[in-house]
Amino acid sequence: MSRLPISEELIAEANARAADALEDEYASLGRKLERSGIAIDAIKDKVAGFSVAVPSWGAGRGGTRFAKFPIAGEPTTIHEKLEDCAVINQLSRLTPRVSPHFPWDKVSDYKALREEAASLGLGFDAVNSNTFQDQKDQAHSYSTGSLSSTIEATRQQAVEHNIECIEIGKQLGSTDLTVWVGDGTNFPGQQDLGRSLDRYLDAASQVYAALPDDWRMLLEHKMFEPAFYSTVISDWGSSILAAQELGPKAKCLVDLGHHAPNVNIEQIVARLHRFGKLGGFHFNDSKYGDDDLDSGSINPHQLFLVFNELVEAELAPRDGFKPSYMIDQSHNVTDPIESMLSSAEAIGSCYAKALLVDREALHLAQEANDTMMAFQALRRAYNVDVGPILAKARVEAGGAADVLGVYRESRWRDRKAQERKAVGLGAGIV
Amino acid sequence: MSRLPISEELIAEANARAADALEDEYASLGRKLERSGIAIDAIKDKVAGFSVAVPSWGAGRGGTRFAKFPIAGEPTTIHEKLEDCAVINQLSRLTPRVSPHFPWDKVSDYKALREEAASLGLGFDAVNSNTFQDQKDQAHSYSTGSLSSTIEATRQQAVEHNIECIEIGKQLGSTDLTVWVGDGTNFPGQQDLGRSLDRYLDAASQVYAALPDDWRMLLEHKMFEPAFYSTVISDWGSSILAAQELGPKAKCLVDLGHHAPNVNIEQIVARLHRFGKLGGFHFNDSKYGDDDLDSGSINPHQLFLVFNELVEAELAPRDGFKPSYMIDQSHNVTDPIESMLSSAEAIGSCYAKALLVDREALHLAQEANDTMMAFQALRRAYNVDVGPILAKARVEAGGAADVLGVYRESRWRDRKAQERKAVGLGAGIV
Amino acid sequence: MSRLPISEELIAEANARAADALEDEYASLGRKLERSGIAIDAIKDKVAGFSVAVPSWGAGRGGTRFAKFPIAGEPTTIHEKLEDCAVINQLSRLTPRVSPHFPWDKVSDYKALREEAASLGLGFDAVNSNTFQDQKDQAHSYSTGSLSSTIEATRQQAVEHNIECIEIGKQLGSTDLTVWVGDGTNFPGQQDLGRSLDRYLDAASQVYAALPDDWRMLLEHKMFEPAFYSTVISDWGSSILAAQELGPKAKCLVDLGHHAPNVNIEQIVARLHRFGKLGGFHFNDSKYGDDDLDSGSINPHQLFLVFNELVEAELAPRDGFKPSYMIDQSHNVTDPIESMLSSAEAIGSCYAKALLVDREALHLAQEANDTMMAFQALRRAYNVDVGPILAKARVEAGGAADVLGVYRESRWRDRKAQERKAVGLGAGIV
Amino acid sequence: MSRLPISEELIAEANARAADALEDEYASLGRKLERSGIAIDAIKDKVAGFSVAVPSWGAGRGGTRFAKFPIAGEPTTIHEKLEDCAVINQLSRLTPRVSPHFPWDKVSDYKALREEAASLGLGFDAVNSNTFQDQKDQAHSYSTGSLSSTIEATRQQAVEHNIECIEIGKQLGSTDLTVWVGDGTNFPGQQDLGRSLDRYLDAASQVYAALPDDWRMLLEHKMFEPAFYSTVISDWGSSILAAQELGPKAKCLVDLGHHAPNVNIEQIVARLHRFGKLGGFHFNDSKYGDDDLDSGSINPHQLFLVFNELVEAELAPRDGFKPSYMIDQSHNVTDPIESMLSSAEAIGSCYAKALLVDREALHLAQEANDTMMAFQALRRAYNVDVGPILAKARVEAGGAADVLGVYRESRWRDRKAQERKAVGLGAGIV
Repeated sequence: MSRLPISEELIAEANARAADALEDEYASLGRKLERSGIAIDAIKDKVAGFSVAVPSWGAGRGGTRFAKFPIAGEPTTIHEKLEDCAVINQLSRLTPRVSPHFPWDKVSDYKALREEAASLGLGFDAVNSNTFQDQKDQAHSYSTGSLSSTIEATRQQAVEHNIECIEIGKQLGSTDLTVWVGDGTNFPGQQDLGRSLDRYLDAASQVYAALPDDWRMLLEHKMFEPAFYSTVISDWGSSILAAQELGPKAKCLVDLGHHAPNVNIEQIVARLHRFGKLGGFHFNDSKYGDDDLDSGSINPHQLFLVFNELVEAELAPRDGFKPSYMIDQSHNVTDPIESMLSSAEAIGSCYAKALLVDREALHLAQEANDTMMAFQALRRAYNVDVGPILAKARVEAGGAADVLGVYRESRWRDRKAQERKAVGLGAGIV
Repeated sequence: MSRLPISEELIAEANARAADALEDEYASLGRKLERSGIAIDAIKDKVAGFSVAVPSWGAGRGGTRFAKFPIAGEPTTIHEKLEDCAVINQLSRLTPRVSPHFPWDKVSDYKALREEAASLGLGFDAVNSNTFQDQKDQAHSYSTGSLSSTIEATRQQAVEHNIECIEIGKQLGSTDLTVWVGDGTNFPGQQDLGRSLDRYLDAASQVYAALPDDWRMLLEHKMFEPAFYSTVISDWGSSILAAQELGPKAKCLVDLGHHAPNVNIEQIVARLHRFGKLGGFHFNDSKYGDDDLDSGSINPHQLFLVFNELVEAELAPRDGFKPSYMIDQSHNVTDPIESMLSSAEAIGSCYAKALLVDREALHLAQEANDTMMAFQALRRAYNVDVGPILAKARVEAGGAADVLGVYRESRWRDRKAQERKAVGLGAGIV
Repeated sequence: MSRLPISEELIAEANARAADALEDEYASLGRKLERSGIAIDAIKDKVAGFSVAVPSWGAGRGGTRFAKFPIAGEPTTIHEKLEDCAVINQLSRLTPRVSPHFPWDKVSDYKALREEAASLGLGFDAVNSNTFQDQKDQAHSYSTGSLSSTIEATRQQAVEHNIECIEIGKQLGSTDLTVWVGDGTNFPGQQDLGRSLDRYLDAASQVYAALPDDWRMLLEHKMFEPAFYSTVISDWGSSILAAQELGPKAKCLVDLGHHAPNVNIEQIVARLHRFGKLGGFHFNDSKYGDDDLDSGSINPHQLFLVFNELVEAELAPRDGFKPSYMIDQSHNVTDPIESMLSSAEAIGSCYAKALLVDREALHLAQEANDTMMAFQALRRAYNVDVGPILAKARVEAGGAADVLGVYRESRWRDRKAQERKAVGLGAGIV
Repeated sequence: MSRLPISEELIAEANARAADALEDEYASLGRKLERSGIAIDAIKDKVAGFSVAVPSWGAGRGGTRFAKFPIAGEPTTIHEKLEDCAVINQLSRLTPRVSPHFPWDKVSDYKALREEAASLGLGFDAVNSNTFQDQKDQAHSYSTGSLSSTIEATRQQAVEHNIECIEIGKQLGSTDLTVWVGDGTNFPGQQDLGRSLDRYLDAASQVYAALPDDWRMLLEHKMFEPAFYSTVISDWGSSILAAQELGPKAKCLVDLGHHAPNVNIEQIVARLHRFGKLGGFHFNDSKYGDDDLDSGSINPHQLFLVFNELVEAELAPRDGFKPSYMIDQSHNVTDPIESMLSSAEAIGSCYAKALLVDREALHLAQEANDTMMAFQALRRAYNVDVGPILAKARVEAGGAADVLGVYRESRWRDRKAQERKAVGLGAGIV
């Protein structure tokens, strides 16, 4: 039934060539960890159970307001995007779910789409609505905002679109609706800051009311862009207060690039968990703003510290702790498949490192105010090269020891460049 | 009874010299405002009813970790500080209350202190506790934090100190306790981010329980310094969640310099008001961090936008809207009296400008998504030189038309340099 | 000959209605300034001699990578853009020059274009090259950068395009070439940071060599976007070192939104002037990044401090001080004409306020380390409402007392909406 | 002759216990590297030749403007500080030089001090002057600044102090003078931004003139603190322009915590090298401002990227590439010896990782615009756990395999707490 896109022989042959080195590295690391009382196989098994969703839109080249530089063989339909996502998961065995975006991924038959994905080894993750740009033949423009617009018909249109996303998601097997709005202002005074939130909450509660019992509504905050003076859900404080008002199924989603400079994101994660509202993540990395760079490419230590909070939370969950993990990146200068392979590896590595933290030593040092030893408990884990653990887990699951190497060997993109239609010049994310 | 420090003749003579110019400017502005349908006397009356507290510690020179450069005639006791605060209020008629800090302002007889202040025309504002530095003969060091310390005895000591501050405050006529703690960490892992907050909340609730019915507990958040990796109450999100847990008498205090770069502070004000937790302000200004510069000296437009939210809130209060206003600055390079005179004027000016906003035009433009006209409604008010309104209100209340001019003429600091003992070299804020 | 777009009767009538109020305000301010020894007419005359260029591309709606929301009646050709720019200048009398961007503004006959502009009362300012996006039928993609690309043919194409811009500029009467490149990287390691600059300098020197004797090459630095890890000319330090290497005709252009958070931009202006390399400005405002908001809308005090440096430099120029002033904004949510009218007014106001600074008092206070009085010298000037000075200068030159009011009364945009073709949906700046 | 402070038996015994594990890890890593064509011993030898200086003042507890929390056994004299620095070097074998600060480290006999240091295995690095705080009995206060003060006598005093530091440095064997001034302003207008730099350059050139031929003058820029509106040498641009004016012996020193938020520091390093002015480093780490945290504790990847530039520069030096490396941290919450042991390890590790980068693969990928492979060339090196390489180099040089473990076993601090006099309460860095 399954029709995985990359040749299994190719993977097997490459893995065979890499086998001796991997065995040596895995065994060496195993001996090292054992000296600290850690069984490497137990870590590997936990890593094997870890996964992160990939965004359908991330399969294409992204761009900035200045330009987009397409590559040959880029996918332009949800069907082509699923195919590319299947490559990522087949090689990495870390990304079995795809997060769709509507109306970008609209099709006429969602049951068929779900089967198509399943045949590629994929399922669907959170459904994303889009009320930040206008679509052709749309009745009301989002130029005045969407859920917070002063125009009732516009708000209603945004509510209905979100509810439609839920309906689609039900057919796809999703259980989360991610809501990010571009609503905000570019001028002081443009809108009343309090009343804008009132309108947002009123409209969002209508969406909330349409959620099935086992669904969650993930609110995504963002400091700026596309609005450059204020945004309605600008920070985690606004997000959690909104989620409190909406109800228990509303949770907060953390995108690593949506914060003010210097902010301690791992503490935001700890706070959201502490107050029962940590819903999930959009993983990426940033140096300046919402740069949407590859996860861990700029500040891998921060990503580790986020996972340190997540593993701490797994061990002492406060609430219905069930965060959902998704990549959300804009691949402006790389082959999107390669970026997501590299990113999934970076994310999985941070999870593995966080698992290696000697939590008893850490807690004892914290209790004793032994600052240096508490820090060293984290640092020792961070310093470990966990590559062999991830590779071993991957290979055992049918993936590739060297994901980028096998992908290049497969000449996937070149082959697709023959088949797929070219993307035109332009700017922006789509 | 009253023994105001500056000669009333001096003030009267200076005001007489300035009278013609003031009358012309006030009348000219009155005609201009009248053309927009605004009665200048009504604005002047509202400004006359406005006030902001000054911090006792602000009466002395502040410093950085590198150095403090004292000036001759600086006050070193609460008695001398009250005298200087009386100068500020006598000239500006904007600062009738002083906010004390303990143990810095400890005396043996608080009833007498209250009378001493009253005789200078002053009352007391929020009481500030200090658990961020160790005092001689203190049983437990705050080196591990205070309300969030892992050491129970330390937490208990911090709780008791806060309760002692409430007791003192009762005698002084205060009704607010401001709680800022320096608790936090300098290293990832130093403390567990969730459990630190648990301990803080547990200890803070003991303080809360000791509050009289008509008191409020003002929680002050701060992004960094003295802790440089994480702080327990780092942002408004942490602050409001803590205030929610503590109860209705707990509110959030906004210090303008305690935020991440680029953050929209006026929106934080709007959010805290929207959710019923806006407690008050520490006014100052900053360019980089908690610079504690003079209010409005760096970004006067931001201060205006904050007051725009406050006036909007006055007109449509969500809750028990009763924010408390205080200056909190570190006067490292100026005569503190001059800085507070200048700052009170800057704060009062922003309040006056916010009163001038044509709110009907603003709301109509907002409703109509007429962005430019909504912005211009604010901008027209911001552009007005409200100096004559403040001067008129001041003169009518017995203050000086030219506060800095009269202060210099009074030779107050020179005279005090003869009387007061010199301050030694050192560093830091005290 | 001249065919100014707005009816002169309309302007005259509106000015007549506003005349009494303006006379009163101008006279009132004149008396106030006279009391400080300042002759208001002298200030008005200097303001009348001030101007700032507008960007051709700013006449259309801008957008973000997420979306662009067009308005009816937007210009889509350089001819329509010139017409709109003529409206701005006719009403404000502050913007007699237009800065064109190529290939966006390409025409077959530049001599005719220059005459067309002249007939609208307009001339041309700095020519802007565009090597940050690909054009249809372009031989080499700028996806690898332009002047710093590793690919020689790409660099050569970028050099030739810049030289072509100079050739066009000569025909249009320009004497400046503004060079901003989007070159940079999104990943650590993507390019060698030193060799990228070597290539940039080598290519830029070829452009420099093609400059006529009386031309300048204005280098525009930018911290980030479209590149999100490093940019080749990222800050004023890189810019001035590049300008030093290129030669005396190379100068630095300061865009107010292209700096790191918290940076003291007025000091950068002072530094560039001190070292003889201040070339000019792209005025706009920002809160977070390169937000391209309306000048003075977010931080008008910063704009004033920039002009304080410029007036200081006018009075004590170090070098061939001849900065070129241009607006560079992205009008995403307003009518671009209204934004540029409002922005030109904000810019001119800051110039006027800077002229009002009592420089002798300022310098004496600085020499005497009288910090408060030095600050007050600036603050007194900043607080003045200079609106009447600008309005008077405008009216005397044939402009409108109330620029926005007359523009709306003219129904310009509505009329153009009947004539001009609609802009489609999309994203980005063009 | 040598009297190293820690028992050599203690070290030898601990190393013996760690030997088997170290041999296994070193051999395992050696096999891994060999598979990539890298000889581990060659890397180890380069690491063995690497060193970084420690600051004498870093041996004591640091503090903030709010408080300092001393620890028992802290050193208070240069003699005690040297002893502590000897511990750091004995265990780590990475820190053979101490950087002194005057007048803090003043003694009567510098020849004796140099011998004292030598007997502890130590030499002296860059001499640091101090004109940012007043000393008892100092003729002129630095409250108006130092090298840039408007007061000539103050500038002269600062010049003479710097020249005195050079004289002391000659006796101690130093060849660098590090000049950091706290000069700047807290208010717009407080000083003229251009003339302040003129005065700075004039005074600095007098110091420069006193430099011996083989000395360098290292200019250290800083964005803010203790001045909070502007600083005279605020960024690398100001620093390099000042260094250019002073002459070839003037170079720029990069402190990792002295930059604006988000700035790409590794690119600044590349720029300074490109233009022949990279003088050296003050290593530390920061999250918010000049936090002076332990090197690599917050962003170890950034530290690696800095070393990536340094190794790139070593291989293709542009100029007299000879950067000087020094730790500059404020140890507010740890035992300073432990922090410097941990920091030296972090710094050495980043150097080792940078050596592991496959530069040929990197350059080829850069030339080919193969972004992903260029990034992976860095990432592969960064992911390596180089701990065994550093440990091996250390042990072979007589240091400890487990530096923190042996230090704790030695009970050094407890023993010193018996001998040394206690430090009183206070605030600030000294």
